[in-house]
Amino acid sequence: MLVVHGPNLNLLGAREPEIYGRTTLAEIDGALVDQASNAGVELRSFQSNHEGALIDQIQEARSWASGILVNPGGLTHTSVALRDALAATGLPVVEVHLSNVYAREDFRQHSLVSGIAAGVVGGFGPESYRIGLEGLLTRLRAR
Amino acid sequence: MLVVHGPNLNLLGAREPEIYGRTTLAEIDGALVDQASNAGVELRSFQSNHEGALIDQIQEARSWASGILVNPGGLTHTSVALRDALAATGLPVVEVHLSNVYAREDFRQHSLVSGIAAGVVGGFGPESYRIGLEGLLTRLRAR
Amino acid sequence: MLVVHGPNLNLLGAREPEIYGRTTLAEIDGALVDQASNAGVELRSFQSNHEGALIDQIQEARSWASGILVNPGGLTHTSVALRDALAATGLPVVEVHLSNVYAREDFRQHSLVSGIAAGVVGGFGPESYRIGLEGLLTRLRAR
Amino acid sequence: MLVVHGPNLNLLGAREPEIYGRTTLAEIDGALVDQASNAGVELRSFQSNHEGALIDQIQEARSWASGILVNPGGLTHTSVALRDALAATGLPVVEVHLSNVYAREDFRQHSLVSGIAAGVVGGFGPESYRIGLEGLLTRLRAR
Amino acid sequence: MLVVHGPNLNLLGAREPEIYGRTTLAEIDGALVDQASNAGVELRSFQSNHEGALIDQIQEARSWASGILVNPGGLTHTSVALRDALAATGLPVVEVHLSNVYAREDFRQHSLVSGIAAGVVGGFGPESYRIGLEGLLTRLRAR
Amino acid sequence: MLVVHGPNLNLLGAREPEIYGRTTLAEIDGALVDQASNAGVELRSFQSNHEGALIDQIQEARSWASGILVNPGGLTHTSVALRDALAATGLPVVEVHLSNVYAREDFRQHSLVSGIAAGVVGGFGPESYRIGLEGLLTRLRAR
Amino acid sequence: MLVVHGPNLNLLGAREPEIYGRTTLAEIDGALVDQASNAGVELRSFQSNHEGALIDQIQEARSWASGILVNPGGLTHTSVALRDALAATGLPVVEVHLSNVYAREDFRQHSLVSGIAAGVVGGFGPESYRIGLEGLLTRLRAR
Amino acid sequence: MLVVHGPNLNLLGAREPEIYGRTTLAEIDGALVDQASNAGVELRSFQSNHEGALIDQIQEARSWASGILVNPGGLTHTSVALRDALAATGLPVVEVHLSNVYAREDFRQHSLVSGIAAGVVGGFGPESYRIGLEGLLTRLRAR
Amino acid sequence: MLVVHGPNLNLLGAREPEIYGRTTLAEIDGALVDQASNAGVELRSFQSNHEGALIDQIQEARSWASGILVNPGGLTHTSVALRDALAATGLPVVEVHLSNVYAREDFRQHSLVSGIAAGVVGGFGPESYRIGLEGLLTRLRAR
Amino acid sequence: MLVVHGPNLNLLGAREPEIYGRTTLAEIDGALVDQASNAGVELRSFQSNHEGALIDQIQEARSWASGILVNPGGLTHTSVALRDALAATGLPVVEVHLSNVYAREDFRQHSLVSGIAAGVVGGFGPESYRIGLEGLLTRLRAR
Amino acid sequence: MLVVHGPNLNLLGAREPEIYGRTTLAEIDGALVDQASNAGVELRSFQSNHEGALIDQIQEARSWASGILVNPGGLTHTSVALRDALAATGLPVVEVHLSNVYAREDFRQHSLVSGIAAGVVGGFGPESYRIGLEGLLTRLRAR
Amino acid sequence: MLVVHGPNLNLLGAREPEIYGRTTLAEIDGALVDQASNAGVELRSFQSNHEGALIDQIQEARSWASGILVNPGGLTHTSVALRDALAATGLPVVEVHLSNVYAREDFRQHSLVSGIAAGVVGGFGPESYRIGLEGLLTRLRAR
Repeated sequence: MLVVHGPNLNLLGAREPEIYGRTTLAEIDGALVDQASNAGVELRSFQSNHEGALIDQIQEARSWASGILVNPGGLTHTSVALRDALAATGLPVVEVHLSNVYAREDFRQHSLVSGIAAGVVGGFGPESYRIGLEGLLTRLRAR
Repeated sequence: MLVVHGPNLNLLGAREPEIYGRTTLAEIDGALVDQASNAGVELRSFQSNHEGALIDQIQEARSWASGILVNPGGLTHTSVALRDALAATGLPVVEVHLSNVYAREDFRQHSLVSGIAAGVVGGFGPESYRIGLEGLLTRLRAR
Repeated sequence: MLVVHGPNLNLLGAREPEIYGRTTLAEIDGALVDQASNAGVELRSFQSNHEGALIDQIQEARSWASGILVNPGGLTHTSVALRDALAATGLPVVEVHLSNVYAREDFRQHSLVSGIAAGVVGGFGPESYRIGLEGLLTRLRAR
Repeated sequence: MLVVHGPNLNLLGAREPEIYGRTTLAEIDGALVDQASNAGVELRSFQSNHEGALIDQIQEARSWASGILVNPGGLTHTSVALRDALAATGLPVVEVHLSNVYAREDFRQHSLVSGIAAGVVGGFGPESYRIGLEGLLTRLRAR
Repeated sequence: MLVVHGPNLNLLGAREPEIYGRTTLAEIDGALVDQASNAGVELRSFQSNHEGALIDQIQEARSWASGILVNPGGLTHTSVALRDALAATGLPVVEVHLSNVYAREDFRQHSLVSGIAAGVVGGFGPESYRIGLEGLLTRLRAR
Repeated sequence: MLVVHGPNLNLLGAREPEIYGRTTLAEIDGALVDQASNAGVELRSFQSNHEGALIDQIQEARSWASGILVNPGGLTHTSVALRDALAATGLPVVEVHLSNVYAREDFRQHSLVSGIAAGVVGGFGPESYRIGLEGLLTRLRAR
Repeated sequence: MLVVHGPNLNLLGAREPEIYGRTTLAEIDGALVDQASNAGVELRSFQSNHEGALIDQIQEARSWASGILVNPGGLTHTSVALRDALAATGLPVVEVHLSNVYAREDFRQHSLVSGIAAGVVGGFGPESYRIGLEGLLTRLRAR
Repeated sequence: MLVVHGPNLNLLGAREPEIYGRTTLAEIDGALVDQASNAGVELRSFQSNHEGALIDQIQEARSWASGILVNPGGLTHTSVALRDALAATGLPVVEVHLSNVYAREDFRQHSLVSGIAAGVVGGFGPESYRIGLEGLLTRLRAR
Repeated sequence: MLVVHGPNLNLLGAREPEIYGRTTLAEIDGALVDQASNAGVELRSFQSNHEGALIDQIQEARSWASGILVNPGGLTHTSVALRDALAATGLPVVEVHLSNVYAREDFRQHSLVSGIAAGVVGGFGPESYRIGLEGLLTRLRAR
Repeated sequence: MLVVHGPNLNLLGAREPEIYGRTTLAEIDGALVDQASNAGVELRSFQSNHEGALIDQIQEARSWASGILVNPGGLTHTSVALRDALAATGLPVVEVHLSNVYAREDFRQHSLVSGIAAGVVGGFGPESYRIGLEGLLTRLRAR
Repeated sequence: MLVVHGPNLNLLGAREPEIYGRTTLAEIDGALVDQASNAGVELRSFQSNHEGALIDQIQEARSWASGILVNPGGLTHTSVALRDALAATGLPVVEVHLSNVYAREDFRQHSLVSGIAAGVVGGFGPESYRIGLEGLLTRLRAR
Repeated sequence: MLVVHGPNLNLLGAREPEIYGRTTLAEIDGALVDQASNAGVELRSFQSNHEGALIDQIQEARSWASGILVNPGGLTHTSVALRDALAATGLPVVEVHLSNVYAREDFRQHSLVSGIAAGVVGGFGPESYRIGLEGLLTRLRAR
């Protein structure tokens, strides 16, 4: 299972904690590893501010992962290349957002990723990751 | 906790089972009652094909519920009145969809409800409800 | 065969007879029963100003009807829920309009129902129903 | 004279009194009855969260009322059927809003009812009803 | 009565018979002549891939025909000149389509002809012609 | 209280009396002065065809008026400068129209002024002014 | 000098004389020949309902004409090919319309020809041709 | 006959003579006076950079002029008030442009004046005025 | 193999040689015949300014050709009928443009033909044809 | 050097000082005169709420000024005439805004002036003027 | 000659071979080197999933390459920076796509690169590269 | 103080010097260091063609810089991630452009960065940086 965090998500916990909470990305990743481990699934996570680095990792996931949990950050709305990389893996993809992007600025209301995602979760803060992973695991079990 | 199912969701399990699966709405509601019960929360569910009846129930929820889980069905994209009713409760609302509506026809890509929802979950089939309820419960605990 | 008349069609014959003619909905329904009877098909008709009541009836038609003739009235342009109900029956649907809606106000030029209709008839006044039923019967015979 | 209150207006006085004031719908209706009575006009009011029930009442008004005062609530922006029902009465219609809808969200800036209304009043809170009725009465006297 | 078939309709019966059926245009025209003859009306039909030739025939129809049945084919969506020719005859026009064009590509969802048509029929395959002629004949009798 | 009449409103009573009635702007202003006087409020009115002159007067109103009643005429739809002037006064503004502008040409359906108005009144002919002033006075009394 | 009349203009004088007047196209052409002759310029005119035939004639004009007066009729709004043919002649082009197309239906408000025209004249009925030719002659003299 | 020149047209002859020619507005006005005089019609012209001043003059023309020739300059595309003033005169209006505005920037391609103009002339430089006046005189004679 | 040249392409070599070069359409066709001949494929070419004539030839190609190379000229952007004719042949279609249409006016940026084309080539001047034919031949060989 | 201040800018320092600061327009103008004087350039400033008066001054600047610094206020988004006047001077124009208009309402995000401006400065409060003048002076020196 | 392959093109041959074929990017590059070599031109190719890395290589090409063949992949539709880099080289650019992007999703129908490309080739699978290179070589020879 | 230069700005001085001048980015950076130094502020600058690298540097600036001067180049119009990174710093941001982007292609007229910028400067060539820095320094001093 690959978890992909897009641009600026490395700032979680440090940036505006009164809004985004004090949970860091490392803490989120730790909890996801445990959650996956309990389900008997290996989980690796990757964050980058570089679209290209994200695509590289997603391409590699074809050889080892059974699914992808992705929070594309600001690339959600602008990257056809990221969408193409996710689609090319042939793996089930769950799209995750900390906030409810559909209740924010106009330019955040269309996701290029959603069109190829199996599921979408947004608005639960760090919990969105746990919920999204749960959905992805359930889906994999259902196969 | 109120669970609101919009138009045509009463057909779940009967309609196109090869696509939507064989889980009925009664089974989904039963599982949600159990899930809520485990969390010590009372849960009632309501389905109607009538927008007005849905609004009546949502208004009543102000007196007893601590949150609303709603799958507005086809009203997602067309009902300002439903949005207003949900907003008027002042309760946290989680929007749930069986399919990933953002990957379907154009007229399904804008939700009037998302703008007032705390969280959004879609694409996991009947699991979307369980996941959405989990998110709502977590949110309530965090208060 | 189910005939569904949407909001305000109960006023036919009473409202602006110089425009819409003096034929009442009861007369139209009577003629349709005869026309279907001659083809050996049972026909029931239903009118309501309530979107939910229309959807209820359409859902029930799954158990007994072989096709649906629908004049959605003002809901033509606004109801995704009605569209979903019609599509969920799996029955052939023919959409009927008294006037040629494509020659009226801009907001009447897009039908949410047409996308799932087998055929569309408009502009012939009460005759639209007879013509539409004929088309539906022919289609059923052709199966 | 028929006064029609659309979805969620039954909550007036109970919902967010610091914003909408503590005047209830019953108080508004009482004042309107008095105002009409002073002008020698019978006035009945009707609220429902059901679009269909509103249309039923509007259709009946053809037999007894001389005008309609309508606050369509959330249906303002989405209901062609309500517009058609109001137009079919042939009665003068005055559209009323508590808030100035033109200063709110984009999806509230177009009214399907305005196209067939004689007059429009918005932004004066409960006073909008009194002002709108005054305009409607003046209009009737001018005939 | 003039029947006008636009570009590519000469291929009917030869092109993709599994989709469009094996009925040829000649067979359709033959049936329409019989149908009109039974109603005591002369019917001539004309097909061309040339917009100009179609307009020439439509203009001539002013001297002899009592109505026009037209399937404009691909010109439906692009020809203001064809619309103007039809309107200039002053004759009642019924627009016919084999398929339900409103359920196809976006660029087929607006008809320049509908704005001046008395009636519209689509989606019944070759039957659309028979149904449309019936509607046109009824209309002429009603005068 | 300042009453502002935009371009062409000086023609009232003289232009197309069969449509706009025979009431002149002077008569309207006289009635408004009386109405305000009864409420113990000084009222001055100003008409100009010059956007700049209107803005000059509106700016001056900051020093003496308690509210502004404005019929911006054709500037309603085109003048950001007028909007800015009204907003800069910090006074409550009520927007008035003789006709129901929302039922006219497309380019009249958006008002740049409504976004900063407390209330909007339209469609009652000269009565719109009286009704709008009443609303404005009520609002001032409620403070 | 070539005068080009597009589709349906051959009906001038015969179609709706109460609107378009009783002047025939032959009379217009005769007057234009005289007007040009007085200016010492040869003038030929051509009408067709066939876009292709119009283009053929326009292409030929490159060898003999000094300018083109064109009323493209319904092709005004739809024919890139006609525009390209006119542009390819390298001759000055004046676009003429009997009616003021900018005051008609939305789909008539954009002309594909105007972008390459030297001048545009519309709304003067048959006089539009005379006025347009005068403008074209003046332009040629000014060279 | 009133000739109205909008903003910046006073610069004619002085500004960019290589493009607009060396003809001044005074020369144009002189020629128009002669042209009208030959037709036995009094002609006065007025230029201003002030929208309000233009409207004042147009309103006054109601008392003496038989038609209006107007080049609204930059106000063509932005002034509803100017349009309303012209319409309120009840006089025939001919709209004139030096250049072919339909071949320039996007924001110059829609004229608010055209919708109420009897005729439109553009692209002939100073000749546009002469041609437009001729059209207007012809129209007046035809009454 | 059929080569179809749309409106105005007969002017190649004669029109603006400094831009389009001095190669005539006859020379292009000659080179294409040689190129096809070398590949053992018969090639015929057809040019017309008449949409209908182009459609006629395309329909006939169903009986003898193995593919179609088409430069639709100005019809690229406006002809649904041409698109339908090409699609109805069931043959592979390659769309060719002399210039890079995507770098020109807005109205040239959408091709109705591309949606049913196997391949698209543009911008290489007369070479576009040779390159497009090569692509088409390769595709046929690959079958 | 001409400095042009559009509508409502005369209120600077008086209106909402907590937002716009306490600097008055007179103080800004004084500082600009000094700044220009240090660079050996004469500077005059002009404010008006009248579009026409602004255009008059801009036209006069052609005879004496070497550049124009303009804050068009609300006319930024609506005045083609102002744009045309600025362009007609042939002088370099720098557009200045107190606030960052691109971060405000939608209707403020397009400037008609920017298309003909040499430079744009916004968001620095009264400093925008000083910065803009500096840019303009640098540009003039670079010639 | 530089060949630039955008994001995800490194997967060619490995990803969905039944659709994209079994040709790998290495094989394509090998064939292009040979093709260029035969024409006496050095060719280097570069693939990256990183927009920045692609831009770096394109910038370097200014010092050694005579043209650029680019398949921007998903960046085609989203990267102004890539467009700017290509334009800044001053070299002829040919844009290549494996599939016919104009027949795919809406968001793939506009290319930011086409506006600065000399030529465009799409839809021929790996052959698109060979054809595009041929076009580029021909263009270079023609200089 | 961090100065961020986006893609392709490393080419300054080398690319099209007749347009962009001969000033190199190193010279600009040198001058900015001096300018900041005079104000007692440390300034570092960073250029990259990699969006991710730019975001990395911007994130780091949170620990040491007091403001950011950014010329996002082509990313201005496409990068939500860059906008989010700038916003996340909580530092004042001034957006700088060499050219006046609002006077260029349509796709350059909307900046995703402007919405979170304190100020915007464009059109002054390399001077834009100096002017922008001055504005930023003034803003910092004003705190």
